[in-house]
Amino acid sequence: MNTMKIGKQTVKLENPPYIIQSAAVVGVKEGEGPLRDSFDKILHDDTFGMDTWEASESKMQREAATLAMEKAGLMPEDFDYLLAGDLMNQCVATHYGIRDFNIPFLGLYGACSTMTESLSLASMLISAGYGRYAAAMTSSHFCSAEKQFRYPLEYGGQRPPTAQWTVTGSGCAIVAAEGTGPRVTHVTTGKIVDMGVTDINNMGSAMAPAAIDTLSALFRDTKTEPSEYDAVFTGDLGKTGSEILVEQLKAEGFDISGIHNDCGLMIFNLDEQDVHAGGSGCGCMGSVLCGHILKEMRGGKYKKIIAMATGALMNPTVVLQGESIPGIAHAVIIEAQKGR
Amino acid sequence: MNTMKIGKQTVKLENPPYIIQSAAVVGVKEGEGPLRDSFDKILHDDTFGMDTWEASESKMQREAATLAMEKAGLMPEDFDYLLAGDLMNQCVATHYGIRDFNIPFLGLYGACSTMTESLSLASMLISAGYGRYAAAMTSSHFCSAEKQFRYPLEYGGQRPPTAQWTVTGSGCAIVAAEGTGPRVTHVTTGKIVDMGVTDINNMGSAMAPAAIDTLSALFRDTKTEPSEYDAVFTGDLGKTGSEILVEQLKAEGFDISGIHNDCGLMIFNLDEQDVHAGGSGCGCMGSVLCGHILKEMRGGKYKKIIAMATGALMNPTVVLQGESIPGIAHAVIIEAQKGR
Repeated sequence: MNTMKIGKQTVKLENPPYIIQSAAVVGVKEGEGPLRDSFDKILHDDTFGMDTWEASESKMQREAATLAMEKAGLMPEDFDYLLAGDLMNQCVATHYGIRDFNIPFLGLYGACSTMTESLSLASMLISAGYGRYAAAMTSSHFCSAEKQFRYPLEYGGQRPPTAQWTVTGSGCAIVAAEGTGPRVTHVTTGKIVDMGVTDINNMGSAMAPAAIDTLSALFRDTKTEPSEYDAVFTGDLGKTGSEILVEQLKAEGFDISGIHNDCGLMIFNLDEQDVHAGGSGCGCMGSVLCGHILKEMRGGKYKKIIAMATGALMNPTVVLQGESIPGIAHAVIIEAQKGR
Repeated sequence: MNTMKIGKQTVKLENPPYIIQSAAVVGVKEGEGPLRDSFDKILHDDTFGMDTWEASESKMQREAATLAMEKAGLMPEDFDYLLAGDLMNQCVATHYGIRDFNIPFLGLYGACSTMTESLSLASMLISAGYGRYAAAMTSSHFCSAEKQFRYPLEYGGQRPPTAQWTVTGSGCAIVAAEGTGPRVTHVTTGKIVDMGVTDINNMGSAMAPAAIDTLSALFRDTKTEPSEYDAVFTGDLGKTGSEILVEQLKAEGFDISGIHNDCGLMIFNLDEQDVHAGGSGCGCMGSVLCGHILKEMRGGKYKKIIAMATGALMNPTVVLQGESIPGIAHAVIIEAQKGR
């Protein structure tokens, strides 16, 4: 049978689609971090003028999508698919953010892996000829996430050093069958991996096993070595999870120590911004990939990268019931257009 | 550009995949309804031997997938993708149900539209040659849903006549590139439609506008008439939503009154089972499609059908904040294999 599957978990796209544009909107704290010059829009106030945190997050998604479409010279009616999701219960940040776009919509839940899950599916759909344009998007908001997953903000709960800081941000990437820009050439779809971590203040450790699993699958499936890539970006493993990933991958025979960076470590200055182990949330890779990394690729900095967002698939109820935290990681290989 | 898109929202699959097997597991009440003889397994007790309702629902998904795989003679390692989601916050019924399968997983959130969202994407991925086998699955559980979306069971809240009863059930369909069985030939991906309904005890009315939108898009895109289909099955519009759908579609020029049925009206005996406007939940179309309709197709009852599940994309928090309820509907055309 004719298949584009290579190895166990990876597909090599027959018509690698182009990420013709992308845009990122971030909150105040993110706008004070090292990547401040990369983002398309920095909020002056994390409410974004809305009455609820949920509505603020929805507005960020709407804004990120609108900016990306404007930059690409496209209108909502040009799109065949929008693929998106977020961390809110029943993904309401996405649904209320995009409901007026009138674009065929496929809702995803991949927790913090959503940016690469949406980019994977968008790329597969466009490469297969199911349409010309797809938008891949996600968001997170510190305030909506804290209230839903942890404590009311007003409670002022303390955090251990392994805790991460949910990024207030949204990223949207526009995937097209034709155009110019970096191309998604391979998609490695992750499996759920649960190594029994139960500490919800240590998501990096909960997600690292899935990251190791997917990344080693990618290298094996594509028969490539880390040295063939200019960079490997993970989503939000933070300091703790990144250390585990790099160390354990070495044991698998893949040394990414010289080329790995984590969006959660890039978006904040860990020494000065009091974010403990780094940034997290769907919006972390969302804003760093769509706001920073893809722009650097367009500028010629990288020829070939791996982007892999990781997600923790629990909810507060089942964790209180004693369940451990399953993780997942989805990876894509993105290559700069030849000659650019 | 080469595209399989026909019209605005529909793709005609180049290699229509086969639904080679399917299985459904349902709860006690569903097992007392008119379709009792169709299901692969009926629970003796809705706890399914677990300590929490969340774990009971997870176990139903695991069981439905396991039964479907057994019937198809496949093992988890034969699968290229599993696409699933459910109603629980952060889709934990799915994640904990399938975490031991070790199958590349794409998490979806489509609320009660998940069965046809997962079947749509599974069919598109397999038709495109991204793999040989994909499982499309979903579930809902009356007890986990009541506690999360409405009131604790012990509270004994009263319901208005428009309220529906969340189905305890799970369905899994196995989509394959080769084999025998009904084939998914077209996929119509829905848009979010929000007509301003705010009554969470009237989901049928909230979802009907999306159903009208997607179904009329399907007929227009494929240039087909209702008379060309043996049946149109909706997911869980119930009595109220079904009436709106049939009536409003007539105004659009499509009369489905003779061929429409709703899984929420099929799974229960509305006169005797005290379910008010009918069944609802992802598991409603999940169990009725995978347990009943697909078996009837294999038995030769239908040659060509439309299956369309509808979802309401709110959560309780945003509804309390005054938001209306956006809906979505995803449709697939399923045709019996020629000569069967």
